[in-house]
Amino acid sequence: MIHEECGVFGIWQPENGSVAYDTYAGLFALQHRGQEAAGIAVSRQGVFHFHKDVGLVSEVFSGAVLQGLGEGNIAAGHVRYSTSGNPGRTNAQPIVVRHRKGNLAVCHNGNLVNSVQLREKLELAGCIFHTTSDTEVILYLVTQERLASSSIEEALERTMRRIEGAYSLILMSPSKLLAARDPHGFRPLCMGEKPDGAVVFASESCAMDAVGARFVRDILPGEIVAAGPEGIRTIRMHCGEMPRSLCVFEYIYFARPDSVLEGCPVNRWRQEAGRRLAKTHPVDADVVVGVPDSGLDAAIGYADASGIPYRIGLVKNKYIARTFIAPSQEQRAGMVRLKLNPVREVVEGKRVVLVDDSIVRGTTSAQLAGLVREAGAAEVHLRICAPPFLHACYYGTDIDSEDNLIAVNHTVEETAKIIGVDSLGYLSVEDAGRIYVTGDGLCRACFDGHYPTAVPSVSSKNRFELPIGG
Amino acid sequence: MIHEECGVFGIWQPENGSVAYDTYAGLFALQHRGQEAAGIAVSRQGVFHFHKDVGLVSEVFSGAVLQGLGEGNIAAGHVRYSTSGNPGRTNAQPIVVRHRKGNLAVCHNGNLVNSVQLREKLELAGCIFHTTSDTEVILYLVTQERLASSSIEEALERTMRRIEGAYSLILMSPSKLLAARDPHGFRPLCMGEKPDGAVVFASESCAMDAVGARFVRDILPGEIVAAGPEGIRTIRMHCGEMPRSLCVFEYIYFARPDSVLEGCPVNRWRQEAGRRLAKTHPVDADVVVGVPDSGLDAAIGYADASGIPYRIGLVKNKYIARTFIAPSQEQRAGMVRLKLNPVREVVEGKRVVLVDDSIVRGTTSAQLAGLVREAGAAEVHLRICAPPFLHACYYGTDIDSEDNLIAVNHTVEETAKIIGVDSLGYLSVEDAGRIYVTGDGLCRACFDGHYPTAVPSVSSKNRFELPIGG
Amino acid sequence: MIHEECGVFGIWQPENGSVAYDTYAGLFALQHRGQEAAGIAVSRQGVFHFHKDVGLVSEVFSGAVLQGLGEGNIAAGHVRYSTSGNPGRTNAQPIVVRHRKGNLAVCHNGNLVNSVQLREKLELAGCIFHTTSDTEVILYLVTQERLASSSIEEALERTMRRIEGAYSLILMSPSKLLAARDPHGFRPLCMGEKPDGAVVFASESCAMDAVGARFVRDILPGEIVAAGPEGIRTIRMHCGEMPRSLCVFEYIYFARPDSVLEGCPVNRWRQEAGRRLAKTHPVDADVVVGVPDSGLDAAIGYADASGIPYRIGLVKNKYIARTFIAPSQEQRAGMVRLKLNPVREVVEGKRVVLVDDSIVRGTTSAQLAGLVREAGAAEVHLRICAPPFLHACYYGTDIDSEDNLIAVNHTVEETAKIIGVDSLGYLSVEDAGRIYVTGDGLCRACFDGHYPTAVPSVSSKNRFELPIGG
Amino acid sequence: MIHEECGVFGIWQPENGSVAYDTYAGLFALQHRGQEAAGIAVSRQGVFHFHKDVGLVSEVFSGAVLQGLGEGNIAAGHVRYSTSGNPGRTNAQPIVVRHRKGNLAVCHNGNLVNSVQLREKLELAGCIFHTTSDTEVILYLVTQERLASSSIEEALERTMRRIEGAYSLILMSPSKLLAARDPHGFRPLCMGEKPDGAVVFASESCAMDAVGARFVRDILPGEIVAAGPEGIRTIRMHCGEMPRSLCVFEYIYFARPDSVLEGCPVNRWRQEAGRRLAKTHPVDADVVVGVPDSGLDAAIGYADASGIPYRIGLVKNKYIARTFIAPSQEQRAGMVRLKLNPVREVVEGKRVVLVDDSIVRGTTSAQLAGLVREAGAAEVHLRICAPPFLHACYYGTDIDSEDNLIAVNHTVEETAKIIGVDSLGYLSVEDAGRIYVTGDGLCRACFDGHYPTAVPSVSSKNRFELPIGG
Repeated sequence: MIHEECGVFGIWQPENGSVAYDTYAGLFALQHRGQEAAGIAVSRQGVFHFHKDVGLVSEVFSGAVLQGLGEGNIAAGHVRYSTSGNPGRTNAQPIVVRHRKGNLAVCHNGNLVNSVQLREKLELAGCIFHTTSDTEVILYLVTQERLASSSIEEALERTMRRIEGAYSLILMSPSKLLAARDPHGFRPLCMGEKPDGAVVFASESCAMDAVGARFVRDILPGEIVAAGPEGIRTIRMHCGEMPRSLCVFEYIYFARPDSVLEGCPVNRWRQEAGRRLAKTHPVDADVVVGVPDSGLDAAIGYADASGIPYRIGLVKNKYIARTFIAPSQEQRAGMVRLKLNPVREVVEGKRVVLVDDSIVRGTTSAQLAGLVREAGAAEVHLRICAPPFLHACYYGTDIDSEDNLIAVNHTVEETAKIIGVDSLGYLSVEDAGRIYVTGDGLCRACFDGHYPTAVPSVSSKNRFELPIGG
Repeated sequence: MIHEECGVFGIWQPENGSVAYDTYAGLFALQHRGQEAAGIAVSRQGVFHFHKDVGLVSEVFSGAVLQGLGEGNIAAGHVRYSTSGNPGRTNAQPIVVRHRKGNLAVCHNGNLVNSVQLREKLELAGCIFHTTSDTEVILYLVTQERLASSSIEEALERTMRRIEGAYSLILMSPSKLLAARDPHGFRPLCMGEKPDGAVVFASESCAMDAVGARFVRDILPGEIVAAGPEGIRTIRMHCGEMPRSLCVFEYIYFARPDSVLEGCPVNRWRQEAGRRLAKTHPVDADVVVGVPDSGLDAAIGYADASGIPYRIGLVKNKYIARTFIAPSQEQRAGMVRLKLNPVREVVEGKRVVLVDDSIVRGTTSAQLAGLVREAGAAEVHLRICAPPFLHACYYGTDIDSEDNLIAVNHTVEETAKIIGVDSLGYLSVEDAGRIYVTGDGLCRACFDGHYPTAVPSVSSKNRFELPIGG
Repeated sequence: MIHEECGVFGIWQPENGSVAYDTYAGLFALQHRGQEAAGIAVSRQGVFHFHKDVGLVSEVFSGAVLQGLGEGNIAAGHVRYSTSGNPGRTNAQPIVVRHRKGNLAVCHNGNLVNSVQLREKLELAGCIFHTTSDTEVILYLVTQERLASSSIEEALERTMRRIEGAYSLILMSPSKLLAARDPHGFRPLCMGEKPDGAVVFASESCAMDAVGARFVRDILPGEIVAAGPEGIRTIRMHCGEMPRSLCVFEYIYFARPDSVLEGCPVNRWRQEAGRRLAKTHPVDADVVVGVPDSGLDAAIGYADASGIPYRIGLVKNKYIARTFIAPSQEQRAGMVRLKLNPVREVVEGKRVVLVDDSIVRGTTSAQLAGLVREAGAAEVHLRICAPPFLHACYYGTDIDSEDNLIAVNHTVEETAKIIGVDSLGYLSVEDAGRIYVTGDGLCRACFDGHYPTAVPSVSSKNRFELPIGG
Repeated sequence: MIHEECGVFGIWQPENGSVAYDTYAGLFALQHRGQEAAGIAVSRQGVFHFHKDVGLVSEVFSGAVLQGLGEGNIAAGHVRYSTSGNPGRTNAQPIVVRHRKGNLAVCHNGNLVNSVQLREKLELAGCIFHTTSDTEVILYLVTQERLASSSIEEALERTMRRIEGAYSLILMSPSKLLAARDPHGFRPLCMGEKPDGAVVFASESCAMDAVGARFVRDILPGEIVAAGPEGIRTIRMHCGEMPRSLCVFEYIYFARPDSVLEGCPVNRWRQEAGRRLAKTHPVDADVVVGVPDSGLDAAIGYADASGIPYRIGLVKNKYIARTFIAPSQEQRAGMVRLKLNPVREVVEGKRVVLVDDSIVRGTTSAQLAGLVREAGAAEVHLRICAPPFLHACYYGTDIDSEDNLIAVNHTVEETAKIIGVDSLGYLSVEDAGRIYVTGDGLCRACFDGHYPTAVPSVSSKNRFELPIGG
């Protein structure tokens, strides 16, 4: 399974109100982007209140905690998935600090590629770091640039000249809310408006729906949008600097099917991927089954294009929580089945096309194929909505090492054999690029190794040997 | 929304082992049958250990609690949904007591129709009640019959002569595990076997899959099955007493689609219901959308029979927990959307067939229809996999009063107008009965008023005014 | 260390009000009588609400839980120390049940000596037991007698004819609050009045102070007092049946020094015990040090009578909670010192008289003597405010077996040697009886074996092999 | 009530071991110095693990958390009382950061007087602050000095040239543990040794006892002691710079009676204060009662010198936790009595000398006097072990404003009248200075206004308007 690192949300409105609650609701809609930690910071007359902790939004925020944050006119929130071995409370966001010009809260989705160098320079200048995340580097740069800038927007614009890599940022100053996206546009970030005039920023458009906001548009790659008492201001100095490179995995797996990214609805992308798979990897079969949840739309697309009926052949147990107790070795087989149970009626005696989003190590796919076979499937044909993973990602997902990628060391035929399926078909790299309406603009480096930026020489994870557990 | 009251699980094996863990896993698979309280009791050499509390299985059982239950050779577990205003810890099950002949733990799914009379008699004989549930009545009868019986099976058989109504029971004595089903067979109960010889009983077959057990067969209506050191014994004295009356709502809504009840897979039933709806209530439309989760298979059936394409048009947020904080009035619209968000790409500009399981008050249907319309649907045609609710249920669901049933006071046309849909079609009572392969054997009293038993004169809920909160 | 089993509290007032809060406050004042579980039941217009769980009063009752109990005009509460291996939630009190004539809640401090026989009879009549405590036996008797009685008071009076042993009871019916004490008066129970007319019952008078009530009088041995809409009614049918036998350990150790039992302030008793010890076991020494908390007043008495100065020579760490983590073996010495640290300034180079309440196994005394010696004491002379323990107690303390009592198998000289003190002096059995002003009326069976009742043939603990962990 | 801000603890040993557990035990012994937050950081091979949170040591550290910290050879811990309105988790210590030369953890007891200026300078140089505490200022200075220093000791020595005010510090680097005390020696800090060679630093000597360490000596004012692989190194460059100024309130109230500060046992100091009060403020009375816990030794001293008997006249309820629920207005009187109940037997009809540590606003003293009077005291004579408070403290206690000090605006006679006592006597400023054996060396600025340092122009609390709630 691949993991996205974060989701961000921000809201600005002219008068004090329940911005904390809106952020809470927005984070619920973005929970799929990070289930490890959550946080909300609120500004009321420039005074900041915040709360963050490890856990789901529903675990971190009780009614009392939410009420404790109080009313305000600006809020920023974050959900986090930590890819490192250090998932502690220390790295939860927003990071809230005080600098020369006031308070500042920052929420970040992405990963810088030059943070090691930047951090080194800052440390040599006497900076100390409380966390291991890139976000603290950005915070230092913004606050230092702020000393010589006339506004927080200007400080952020100057900071963007120095940082490189993937970032969708939300910054809250005592009076303004800023959203910014790196010039490549690796991670999504959009903007909306509530009927009462509140301005909303969020990683995905589904969060707009959750708070009753109208989707206005995506933040442009390289753009800064600032909402404050003087209205909305946009800075496009860094726009157009780079070719657009939205992470293709946002469509394949990360984003919710009801979100729209860069004008393309996620569910439409997935259906089209399924249709292309049906054409490039047809098979004589009886039923098409999607692996919940990200494989469902693609399975429908495959069924449509192939004429093979679509059925719900795997039932996901929605009650399996993070706190589920790991069973002993002998009970593990049962545990997989506990999470995802095949519907015998659908697969028994059938030639099954199983549609999933991706294959990383192959272990999960093998277990899944095994379950379907045990339930009586005559044949299992696996179709994958992504090309084979061959290269590490430096832009905020956890595919950081090529060592564990099954496709690096095995042909498709070998992989099929290892996984235990009768046939295996991947989406081609070309198709993965073509589905997106504009024909380009997707980062596919994990498939083809064409990185839009210089890449760090050392692996980007846990590179700051670090205090943990806090 | 209609609520089932309970799920039960039990396991017996010759030697001590991790029966607590199996029960834990089994209850996870049955969690959809009750999310309010959970409990497990374990027998180790006849000494009972148990733990129960309000909350989901994952909340009630931590690793430490599960470990605290220890090893054993018999276990019984329960998940509960309380239909009354008294969801406290006191009514959680298993109920574990000590009587003249040793310890006894009981898990119950169903509702007696003569419990008021039985309880009155018991009270007059000096019995005291710790809970408000029927289960304690059953416990008293079994233990009193046990005084004059040679075995717990015999005591249960004698008890079954006195109780009337719906019950699927699991009883754990120091050395035996018993499963019993009322002569009507209102609630499901089945039996399986693990490769190591353990005997498993559960409300639904999906729990067999969860613990790696092979489904053997349904417990017959009226049957008692006892597993113990002398092997498996079956008592069929009460079998065939009554016509079979499995609750039709088990197929429509309660059971998991991967369960098989009385030989009929739940997902097959739902698809067939969808197909019949397509025939009886056809409509010229562009897309068929199921309401997750119980409406999905029916939607596929409708799509199949009508030729209108099936699409995933509503995305359910799986992170909305029971602890989700209720927003203020003005934020409620957003809250519905937080739980179930329409996929604009699927419904915008389309004539949508929305397939749902049932309509109780009509409120939820109206909100849903509103959301789909707001997302741009040109037309909304609602198809319901159940006939209109017209009568109270006395057999363990919470449709206990006719006052709130929209169909009682409104024609189909009026209902469509109130809900705000362009057309509305229900499954016919005849079709609801015909889908089931054997052609009969389903209780449809909530639709047609033909109750298989005498019904209580007073409403069955909260009829024992009661201490709460414990 | 010896443990008391329980503290009880009850309040009745004419109008609904914050009786739950008063009970909460009263239980705080009685917390020293039981730290293992706590519970409160409230009656509002005859409807009962209750909450109980394992833990301290402050852990069991949050603001939300207390508020959830709501207003009422009667409440009963309980703190429990379980002497058995089964401290689970199941045995927490009040036990709240519903019987033929309505709801009933019971709180009990004490121990019956004929409960095994009574329970056997009840079980043969078909009664089932949810707990292992005597209290449930009492509940059955009261409710069964209630069927043939004109009032709950009468039912309780009839029950008292059948139960034997130690009991201070508080019963709450839908409209009345009852307090009753066994004819021997083993356990204390008193009565007070609030300025607003509320009637209060409690194990000790310190609870009256805590709720702002005026102490009125002790409940007489054998007396029933009922408070209800018709005022206060007293039933003295069982008074004078037996010689008074208040447990001498209430004075020595259990009760708070600011409580007054049977007219004798607890702190006065302890000081007098110290004075008598000074006379019977004088010693040439430099300083008198009491072991906190129950040894302090006795130490002051000893110092007064001997002329040796009293000093605070042991500091108790009040932050050591039940959740304190047990260290590894090697760290245990430090752990004792963590709880009770000698003041070197007070004991170094001094001949120290250490005054403690009692010696059970001798282990704690030995550790204490060791600490004082390590801190530099030249001599350690231990004076004990109780005679040597020689016999089991059947009336509600946990000295249930003679096997662990050091005095049973060792002379005073041997004991002194084992403990490691230079001299050891016990209060004489005669003095223990004489301090109490009335000159008699104390149960001293644990010292002299003169039991005021028949004693059970089997040990009274865990005699009902039993479900645990609930 | 006056509040100390913190307690610190550190341990270094050559090999990895249970340093986390020792720190846990040490913090228990120092819990009286701060009940609001607690934290422990452990270094294992230079990798830091830490945990901190709001709550008591027993609440913050469960067995699992302590085990999660793992083994190590260095640890540092902290308990905190926050005097500001911002008691959140953010300000808990140790503060753990990463800088150019590695990890660093800091624990601080005290308050700087030039932190506003230092912070301003740091902010202008681009530093950002996560907390509002002085400690982060110290951290920045140490890490910046470290860039140009050959060792962490040297960096700390250089830092001490720049910071002014009260500080007892413990610093943990990947390989060393440092303890340092400001040149005035405002706050205590001592050093001990475990039998196995471990070096221990702690705020008070009672923590040495708790971990089985031998007290070696106090850290000198101005001294740095570093324990590391090369042994113990001491830097005394800043020793003797300033006259010694240990806070007199450490003796009066903060420290535990079993601690020894600068060679003077705390309990001896208090007894002597009581004796001096007996001479300077004699009274004809029947009994001397100390207010627990800090007034007890002084009461014994007063009783000794006056010949009036000492009695335990106030019983403190040790179970009243921080979570105790605040009652409604009308119930507040009862709440005071819940915490501290007079022993009627001791005070009724008596002329009582009440000995307490200090008077701040007078409210608590008035309530106390009222309780004693209600319990029947004929006269109440209050004797205070401290002179009247007249000036703010800038060195780490929360007497930060003169507005609330009753002595500033009222004569002793007026104060006695307001409080409601028959006479009132304070310890004289001269006596407060003379008790300490060396005859000088105590800071008494809160009484006489002679501040040992320059004082900040603005109040030192909450001076950094700040994000809260984190």
